[in-house]
Amino acid sequence: MKINDSRMGGGELALLRRIRLRARAGGGVRLGIGDDCALLRMRPDEELAVTTDLSIAGRHFRLDWHSPESVGHRTLARGLSDLAAMGARPVAAFLSLGLPPDLTMTPGGKTAPRPWIDRFYNGLLALAEVHKTPLAGGDLAESPVAVADIVLTGVVPRGKALLRAGARAGDLLYVTGSLGGAAAGLARLAELAGAAGRTRPGPPTIPKQLRGLLAAHLYPQPRVAQGLWLQRRGVASAALDLSDGLSTDLTHLCEESGVAAEVDAATLPVHPDASMEQALHGGEDYELLFAAPSKARIPRVIRGVPVTRIGRITPARPGGPAITLVTDGVGEALKAQGWEHFSRR
Amino acid sequence: MKINDSRMGGGELALLRRIRLRARAGGGVRLGIGDDCALLRMRPDEELAVTTDLSIAGRHFRLDWHSPESVGHRTLARGLSDLAAMGARPVAAFLSLGLPPDLTMTPGGKTAPRPWIDRFYNGLLALAEVHKTPLAGGDLAESPVAVADIVLTGVVPRGKALLRAGARAGDLLYVTGSLGGAAAGLARLAELAGAAGRTRPGPPTIPKQLRGLLAAHLYPQPRVAQGLWLQRRGVASAALDLSDGLSTDLTHLCEESGVAAEVDAATLPVHPDASMEQALHGGEDYELLFAAPSKARIPRVIRGVPVTRIGRITPARPGGPAITLVTDGVGEALKAQGWEHFSRR
Repeated sequence: MKINDSRMGGGELALLRRIRLRARAGGGVRLGIGDDCALLRMRPDEELAVTTDLSIAGRHFRLDWHSPESVGHRTLARGLSDLAAMGARPVAAFLSLGLPPDLTMTPGGKTAPRPWIDRFYNGLLALAEVHKTPLAGGDLAESPVAVADIVLTGVVPRGKALLRAGARAGDLLYVTGSLGGAAAGLARLAELAGAAGRTRPGPPTIPKQLRGLLAAHLYPQPRVAQGLWLQRRGVASAALDLSDGLSTDLTHLCEESGVAAEVDAATLPVHPDASMEQALHGGEDYELLFAAPSKARIPRVIRGVPVTRIGRITPARPGGPAITLVTDGVGEALKAQGWEHFSRR
Repeated sequence: MKINDSRMGGGELALLRRIRLRARAGGGVRLGIGDDCALLRMRPDEELAVTTDLSIAGRHFRLDWHSPESVGHRTLARGLSDLAAMGARPVAAFLSLGLPPDLTMTPGGKTAPRPWIDRFYNGLLALAEVHKTPLAGGDLAESPVAVADIVLTGVVPRGKALLRAGARAGDLLYVTGSLGGAAAGLARLAELAGAAGRTRPGPPTIPKQLRGLLAAHLYPQPRVAQGLWLQRRGVASAALDLSDGLSTDLTHLCEESGVAAEVDAATLPVHPDASMEQALHGGEDYELLFAAPSKARIPRVIRGVPVTRIGRITPARPGGPAITLVTDGVGEALKAQGWEHFSRR
């Protein structure tokens, strides 16, 4: 971990020391924060999975909507979810953080609130602890816009990683958890943030009765244990995580596997607060989508999370749609609609 | 590699395909761009070195000063230099890139110039090829400010990495190459960019006779081969790369090793265009600074790059300076001045 901008003064050096204390080496991390690189060890029969995810204020989060703790949690969750999608066990995280000065400053006075960056790390490190993932390094610089790039490393036995390519016609399609909850939560958050009569700047206070409802958006749970289960059992032919929404991510899986897919609308595990639109196209649910041969035995619950069969893999037809949504026996092409974050809200 | 912002349309998907074609798997990279994670393999007797470096427009580069090729080169050079400082052999790079839309757009028409992002990748991938470092993944998103976070992975035999901690009183201090050239080149670039009568927006044209002079700033050469040499010979007791300037980085080395240092001003290999100030405090030279026991045999040239003895490690004294600069036999405390990039220019 470096602080590569010397305009960040003594307060930030103190911050670096605080981060360093909270993010010790251990497990596969032989050398953590404090040198030019971190050093990781793995076993000879393992491969290392690496992923990076960039989060930018105004695109992936909003300082006036999301608490610092939620931004920290979501930043790490995106990376952990990529490891989950490969069936990898997390080893270490690295974080490059670019922040405007007012988010790193420690306000004076005894009653002053903690700085934004400390609360961000609280959110990130709390989730890191759940998944036993030390923060082993990164970079910190001043930036006119808040940006956070998370790097996750994990290990998976050689040749056993879950890939996007590998689904075959006849395989069945499954998802973990429920769909659309994050999009529904985001819509509710937008209402709260835009509510008339708000006088305080910063993220809105979430009423107690809405906390459960908004958790799917503010504190998504990456399915690391479920991905590991699938990898160890060797039952999935292809897998990815639902970050951009079912319609977009299933299209990716079909493209990489060279197949098409049919989804049964009636079977979709739509989140109780979500619409069918949100379940089909809403992003950031961070559930796993996977295919498995029809004779594979897939339980209804994996490590405490429900698993639902939502359709099947079919042969790709030239000119045909990648995904067909079947409603009451009638099929209709389902187009990838992508996930727009905040751009149209 | 993902494009995590669906507002980037078909042109950007085409771009992703171009990047994917140019950045193939190979060497230690078993699976590159296209899945949720990349997969790396290493030998059982190796450790993996990981580093991340964040570059932000206006802080680490300027769109109106630096050509896209130079920004790409410098982005990768920062990461490779961290591997060099550990004595690690590069395995793969990952890049998270956030760009304003006008830098990713392909202008219409046959005579239109290539988009900024393509030229950025040209610069980055040219240096990657020199160091046989495939681009194995990353992320791409829309951002109001151009940001590039580079992640480098490399391997080093277990327990053999060059660390910052390890220098002992009595060791001698060495640097590769020359010092201050990058700061001198930057000062000259600032003059060119600010020259009266410039009518074209964007980076200034560099006159042919100045290209050599500015190369130390625009196209720094990370000392990967020299770091590997030091690691394989096992002669260095501590090492790091000069990214923030000699006064700052040597202070880091002293802190991590629990020692102090004396630098002989007369012996410093000041770049022919640089001042003593620039040699002492100018950042981004990306030379290696290392300590070695006095009986170690350090050649004058390592892999084509000169090596100069510049001082010695001394015991740390409570209340004493970390670094003493000795000029004509007179010692004076040398304070870490840091490197300000563009903030005071």
